[in-house]
Amino acid sequence: MAQAGLDVAGLTAFLQAEFPQVCDDFAVEEVTEEGVIVRLVTAERHLRPGGTVSGPTMFALADVGMYLAILSRLGPVALAVTTNCSIDFMRKPEAGRDLISETRIHKLGRSLAVGDVLIRSEGMEALVARASLTYAIPPERAG
Amino acid sequence: MAQAGLDVAGLTAFLQAEFPQVCDDFAVEEVTEEGVIVRLVTAERHLRPGGTVSGPTMFALADVGMYLAILSRLGPVALAVTTNCSIDFMRKPEAGRDLISETRIHKLGRSLAVGDVLIRSEGMEALVARASLTYAIPPERAG
Amino acid sequence: MAQAGLDVAGLTAFLQAEFPQVCDDFAVEEVTEEGVIVRLVTAERHLRPGGTVSGPTMFALADVGMYLAILSRLGPVALAVTTNCSIDFMRKPEAGRDLISETRIHKLGRSLAVGDVLIRSEGMEALVARASLTYAIPPERAG
Amino acid sequence: MAQAGLDVAGLTAFLQAEFPQVCDDFAVEEVTEEGVIVRLVTAERHLRPGGTVSGPTMFALADVGMYLAILSRLGPVALAVTTNCSIDFMRKPEAGRDLISETRIHKLGRSLAVGDVLIRSEGMEALVARASLTYAIPPERAG
Repeated sequence: MAQAGLDVAGLTAFLQAEFPQVCDDFAVEEVTEEGVIVRLVTAERHLRPGGTVSGPTMFALADVGMYLAILSRLGPVALAVTTNCSIDFMRKPEAGRDLISETRIHKLGRSLAVGDVLIRSEGMEALVARASLTYAIPPERAG
Repeated sequence: MAQAGLDVAGLTAFLQAEFPQVCDDFAVEEVTEEGVIVRLVTAERHLRPGGTVSGPTMFALADVGMYLAILSRLGPVALAVTTNCSIDFMRKPEAGRDLISETRIHKLGRSLAVGDVLIRSEGMEALVARASLTYAIPPERAG
Repeated sequence: MAQAGLDVAGLTAFLQAEFPQVCDDFAVEEVTEEGVIVRLVTAERHLRPGGTVSGPTMFALADVGMYLAILSRLGPVALAVTTNCSIDFMRKPEAGRDLISETRIHKLGRSLAVGDVLIRSEGMEALVARASLTYAIPPERAG
Repeated sequence: MAQAGLDVAGLTAFLQAEFPQVCDDFAVEEVTEEGVIVRLVTAERHLRPGGTVSGPTMFALADVGMYLAILSRLGPVALAVTTNCSIDFMRKPEAGRDLISETRIHKLGRSLAVGDVLIRSEGMEALVARASLTYAIPPERAG
């Protein structure tokens, strides 16, 4: 039987239940036709000297964005795992602003999902980073 | 002095002059606000057994698309070179169709340009491949 | 029943049977403990203006190297397909020399294979390019 | 005047001075002929449910490894920044073990540095992850 996808409330609840360590870092803003929009609630612990968000934090934002986009289609596939991420860092994030990520799923196959994530400082047009990610989806898709 | 960018005719002429070996493979369809649209004029020599376009041909399409997108902004920067390409192959191209690539430039800095390329079989919505590329731009930008 | 891997003669015969268009471009030099060594027999058709090997040709060399490395372990898995390649171009190849690629397999799982390819101009220590590739391996592994 | 590279003590001091938030996470083990060996001192905050190290933590290990490898050659180039990382996750890390990363620099050019990082659970041969990274190096190399 096909599993129902998750909406904003479902994704938020999943994050709180399964990833309590990081669920305060991220806020699910919207489930879109192609994926999801996720906010990094920028805090002191995400910053590098100079006040900009660290690379690992941006990687984490891209990774969680792709994961939540998959869950928004397939439901709680708790065991989906990242197999590859290629990320380009293009501009310094603006100090003191949240980051907004926009994930689009390009392929949602039986065993692999592929998508892109665009990351911007809130309110800015220019990209801070972009990433493409591949997730392996386990054979049985129940959570 | 800023160099003027190239339009479809200028890009086509540049391709014929500088890359005579491959200029019959590619047709510049459009210069867009964000980049360019380039067609692979699929021919026997691009195919693998089974009639689908080969991976190296799709790589070549992504690479030329990014290159032409840079030229469409900066003019004939003959010495711009690819430093990185990450490409995902997602679906088999449809046999007997041209491929259409759509390049968007995300960053055009003083020394690096970064962009994405989406590749589809003509007339199809689903992506065949996607690539992100980085080019190094030489200090003096004259052709 | 486990399929036997292929040695240099087996890989060469496979290339000739399945990829007649490109089998003259590549020579299988050695099956190593970790993968394979494959030579690009550089010819006019591989070159860019200036006499250096083109990017798509280097991509093709990396791709065939990873494919042959998989066949050298699993036997003729004709349907293995590239899902991702991230390639860095670091130096111009030396004009007039063959390229030597060295593939190491890092993971050979049930459904995915991951490896690295290092590419050098013959006789040179410095890397011309490096690539990492992922292949999807079909469920039944018979050729 | 050429800047002297940093040894293990110099790299450790640099990390403590410039990255106080993360300097307890990483221990510089060795400066090698080709790069550096850096340990992730695995702690509760790096783990995902199930006890394995999180993806963002492995990204951070790869990123710091490449950065320290550059500093070990060029001295304290505080402004070198990551422009691209392509990372493959291949196996779950062993629970309760440190991770050992091994960085090899492939190119150290005037404006770009490129290298590979291999990550293993301590004492294990199989790779947990591999990454390739590009750093942009600022024109003046003084710290």
